[in-house]
Amino acid sequence: MESKIRIAVYGRPLVSCSRIGDVLLFLSKLNAISTLHISQGFLETLPELEFTADRTYCGADDFPEVDVLVSIGGDGTLLDCVSLVRDTNIPIWGVNVGRLGFLTFTSLDDVDEAVQSLLDKTFSIESRSMIEVETDGLLPSFPSALNEATVQKQDASMITIHAYINGEFLGTYWADGVIVATPTGSTAYSLSIGGPIVDPHSDVFVISPIAPHNLNMRPLVVPDTSILQLEVESRTGYAIWSMDNHRFTIPSGTSLRLKKSKAQIKFIKFPGANFCVNLRSKLLWGLDKRN
Amino acid sequence: MESKIRIAVYGRPLVSCSRIGDVLLFLSKLNAISTLHISQGFLETLPELEFTADRTYCGADDFPEVDVLVSIGGDGTLLDCVSLVRDTNIPIWGVNVGRLGFLTFTSLDDVDEAVQSLLDKTFSIESRSMIEVETDGLLPSFPSALNEATVQKQDASMITIHAYINGEFLGTYWADGVIVATPTGSTAYSLSIGGPIVDPHSDVFVISPIAPHNLNMRPLVVPDTSILQLEVESRTGYAIWSMDNHRFTIPSGTSLRLKKSKAQIKFIKFPGANFCVNLRSKLLWGLDKRN
Amino acid sequence: MESKIRIAVYGRPLVSCSRIGDVLLFLSKLNAISTLHISQGFLETLPELEFTADRTYCGADDFPEVDVLVSIGGDGTLLDCVSLVRDTNIPIWGVNVGRLGFLTFTSLDDVDEAVQSLLDKTFSIESRSMIEVETDGLLPSFPSALNEATVQKQDASMITIHAYINGEFLGTYWADGVIVATPTGSTAYSLSIGGPIVDPHSDVFVISPIAPHNLNMRPLVVPDTSILQLEVESRTGYAIWSMDNHRFTIPSGTSLRLKKSKAQIKFIKFPGANFCVNLRSKLLWGLDKRN
Amino acid sequence: MESKIRIAVYGRPLVSCSRIGDVLLFLSKLNAISTLHISQGFLETLPELEFTADRTYCGADDFPEVDVLVSIGGDGTLLDCVSLVRDTNIPIWGVNVGRLGFLTFTSLDDVDEAVQSLLDKTFSIESRSMIEVETDGLLPSFPSALNEATVQKQDASMITIHAYINGEFLGTYWADGVIVATPTGSTAYSLSIGGPIVDPHSDVFVISPIAPHNLNMRPLVVPDTSILQLEVESRTGYAIWSMDNHRFTIPSGTSLRLKKSKAQIKFIKFPGANFCVNLRSKLLWGLDKRN
Repeated sequence: MESKIRIAVYGRPLVSCSRIGDVLLFLSKLNAISTLHISQGFLETLPELEFTADRTYCGADDFPEVDVLVSIGGDGTLLDCVSLVRDTNIPIWGVNVGRLGFLTFTSLDDVDEAVQSLLDKTFSIESRSMIEVETDGLLPSFPSALNEATVQKQDASMITIHAYINGEFLGTYWADGVIVATPTGSTAYSLSIGGPIVDPHSDVFVISPIAPHNLNMRPLVVPDTSILQLEVESRTGYAIWSMDNHRFTIPSGTSLRLKKSKAQIKFIKFPGANFCVNLRSKLLWGLDKRN
Repeated sequence: MESKIRIAVYGRPLVSCSRIGDVLLFLSKLNAISTLHISQGFLETLPELEFTADRTYCGADDFPEVDVLVSIGGDGTLLDCVSLVRDTNIPIWGVNVGRLGFLTFTSLDDVDEAVQSLLDKTFSIESRSMIEVETDGLLPSFPSALNEATVQKQDASMITIHAYINGEFLGTYWADGVIVATPTGSTAYSLSIGGPIVDPHSDVFVISPIAPHNLNMRPLVVPDTSILQLEVESRTGYAIWSMDNHRFTIPSGTSLRLKKSKAQIKFIKFPGANFCVNLRSKLLWGLDKRN
Repeated sequence: MESKIRIAVYGRPLVSCSRIGDVLLFLSKLNAISTLHISQGFLETLPELEFTADRTYCGADDFPEVDVLVSIGGDGTLLDCVSLVRDTNIPIWGVNVGRLGFLTFTSLDDVDEAVQSLLDKTFSIESRSMIEVETDGLLPSFPSALNEATVQKQDASMITIHAYINGEFLGTYWADGVIVATPTGSTAYSLSIGGPIVDPHSDVFVISPIAPHNLNMRPLVVPDTSILQLEVESRTGYAIWSMDNHRFTIPSGTSLRLKKSKAQIKFIKFPGANFCVNLRSKLLWGLDKRN
Repeated sequence: MESKIRIAVYGRPLVSCSRIGDVLLFLSKLNAISTLHISQGFLETLPELEFTADRTYCGADDFPEVDVLVSIGGDGTLLDCVSLVRDTNIPIWGVNVGRLGFLTFTSLDDVDEAVQSLLDKTFSIESRSMIEVETDGLLPSFPSALNEATVQKQDASMITIHAYINGEFLGTYWADGVIVATPTGSTAYSLSIGGPIVDPHSDVFVISPIAPHNLNMRPLVVPDTSILQLEVESRTGYAIWSMDNHRFTIPSGTSLRLKKSKAQIKFIKFPGANFCVNLRSKLLWGLDKRN
């Protein structure tokens, strides 16, 4: 007899979500087909389930060995999952409770078809690169970012960032900050500050200044085999370093080394989903609203 | 006895150039160390040489078998050289008569050091990718571009371009045109219309709309293994297709297929020259003029 | 007895328009409340009317003395109307057959309410500034533009434009062209090449380069009392000068003088329409699609 | 006998300035032609003067009644002067110790000519508009900004800003912040985040989002008679409000009202200085470095 698929579920606390009924129904369906593990924090914000959820976990330390991690929420929720799966290669399936996201391709309305695809194994796995950060100071236990690593001003004063690529001096940014984005992150914060959109299959990172003083300092695309070094100077004595939605205060003078992470994030991709479809639905590439 | 290095020289007609004396001196130096071939068109615009130049050539058809092609002029002159070396892998050395270019790293003032480096073989070879265009209509004999392939409006009316990546529909651009740039071309026309700068070692192309109606249609970075297809619609019945500085009028309805060329262009790179130095000197990345 | 309102109607030939029935119905309604004049070219493309249209006109030369000109079509159709009303101060009412435009605020679906407002005189009149062009060469009989005046390259080669403000040298653009836009035109072509959006009540023009070589040459906002001068140099010997949707080929060396036109265009504005509503509906300022 | 011109001098503490000798010489020259008042804080960082400076002042409270305030330093130093002259209409003369600034037109090298022009009264006065901020919370004693008022995120999380113009809802920005810039401020921070350059004689403000999520939310030019209202929402509970180089932490929910200040700043403008010259020297509009 074939053993059941093992699924873990993660969600942020569901506060004032209009679709809790659908979420509960979805959980029941997952429970029916799998050995189901539910995030303790998520479970506590749910009304009573139709089934007994006796397999729970709290975080990365007791994260179970599963075949799939289902992220229920938006793109921000999915970013949380990176800290759970880390370098285990457990694939993530993003289910969007609201509007579709760049990372959460499946709508709560379309889960039935997706569940069937999961059982039929008609899905594919898409690997996404991450950026790993090294510094002499304190580091998070899993110092990799799926979307972007940034260095930003701490208050309203510009900061100075000296950048090096593979040990070669690139230039000095006098700006609100610098973003180093993966292809996955190219449609997130990096896009807002003028960065290009990057097909996820491109083996590159994008280095972009935030509000640069020098107008020639445009977004720069580099091979993801590059070793980047950012040295921060701040008049206030401090700056903010971020990796996805984690933030750290760093002293002026800090040097950050960034490179491609050995770990990759795996996404479950059901038939029909792809990058072009995403651009058209999320960025309205099919729509000419002004005309 | 070791045989002499074989050098070909190409230049555009030197009209009102203030440095003809230096150019002549440089040619004498090249002649002293090599078996020298000079472009017939270039030679005719020069005053009498100090030496007898009996090896000339007219174009790609009689281009000699040489070890190096020296381009004397600016970046535009160097682009002409692509049609001469084509897929022969003959490396190009760009000597700039005026200001340094992105492709012409050596100043006429620094040729002595470079010539020595050429003799000492302390240079390196840098490969640059090109874009090859296919269409059902007439094609130039060497349909590859080092900087960019573009489709542009023919007069002042916008055109419509349907784009496909690897056979998948990407979206429809309503714009003045679309540029597909190599990393080498990322600092040329593509930069003027908002494209990112791309490190030449990145295996990508950049697809950017020119004056797009839809503000979400931002520059897109794709792997250079992608097959792109552009279908052009124009109210005037025609559009302009360009490859580097060659232009062709195409009828509305034309479909262009773009992919990475099998041929690559080889640049001679002398010690000290690199992409970061280029950015700082050409785009003033080291300078904060506004501060 | 009060005399009937006098209305002229203008439209582009209706080809493959799915809403001809609604257009005919709208014309009947206008006929019922007014002395109606219909553009001869438009009338000829319509099926037989329910009423006898015996007052027609061909163009500016025989344009009738009316109280309102109704433009039936999109923003492009409305721009045609500028050449009809010229400096007569006859107000234009833009009725959009398809999606709402920046200039055509009324949908064909909402004409009943608007017609009532027209009869009740609850509308207001909004004045829009125009740009007048002077040159030593041939000029159109009404050389004013509601949206923008541009100088553009004729083929794929950049042109050089020396710009002066009030006789003072501003700078030299090496670019695909230069756009001088009115506030009305700020949401048209000027927006596509990076210009700001301008509230129509601002007494300014925006001068923006198209694909400038110098990245510091950003859009420039100047008082609309400024006298601008653009001197064009083109390697091909020619450039294109445009005023709204009219285009003219000009020789290299041409000097264009631009200033605010004495004439203004008057728009009929029904209650509820305003600039902020326009931004939200046309540019989706209310929508955060990416989130 | 005509009374001497009355001059006040302001500077930031001169630390590691290589030109202290020239500054001292300049102060002597000013002392020779005027009744000279020197900022106490500035004076204390200077070496012993050649003359006895017995007229000093500390700040706005004891700022003397003078004919000119000379700002010695860069653009930041000149912004400090706004808090000194406030609404007194005392004209400011910006002398730049380093590179020329947008506000500090005179180089320390050219002060002799300028001093003569001051004595000969061949200078002109240029008025610059300011933005006044009103809020229900604490306000600085002179709540006007010469360059810009901003609302910005406090840490690395985006904030939400609901904007109103003249009481009309404009739209909601989901962004790192919003800048409202005067024409004077258009070449400062506003330019770094994509705002247009504005001729100082234009009666407008520019509202620009910082890193907006919605790519359609482009810089907006509005008449400077507009009343703007910005309502801030921040997940962290706080945001930063700034006026030029002053910063204030504000709670989420704060509403700021911005309008043109009744007070204006007056600049001393010596012959030859103007906006076009500034653009060419500061933004290199005359230079085509890439070519």
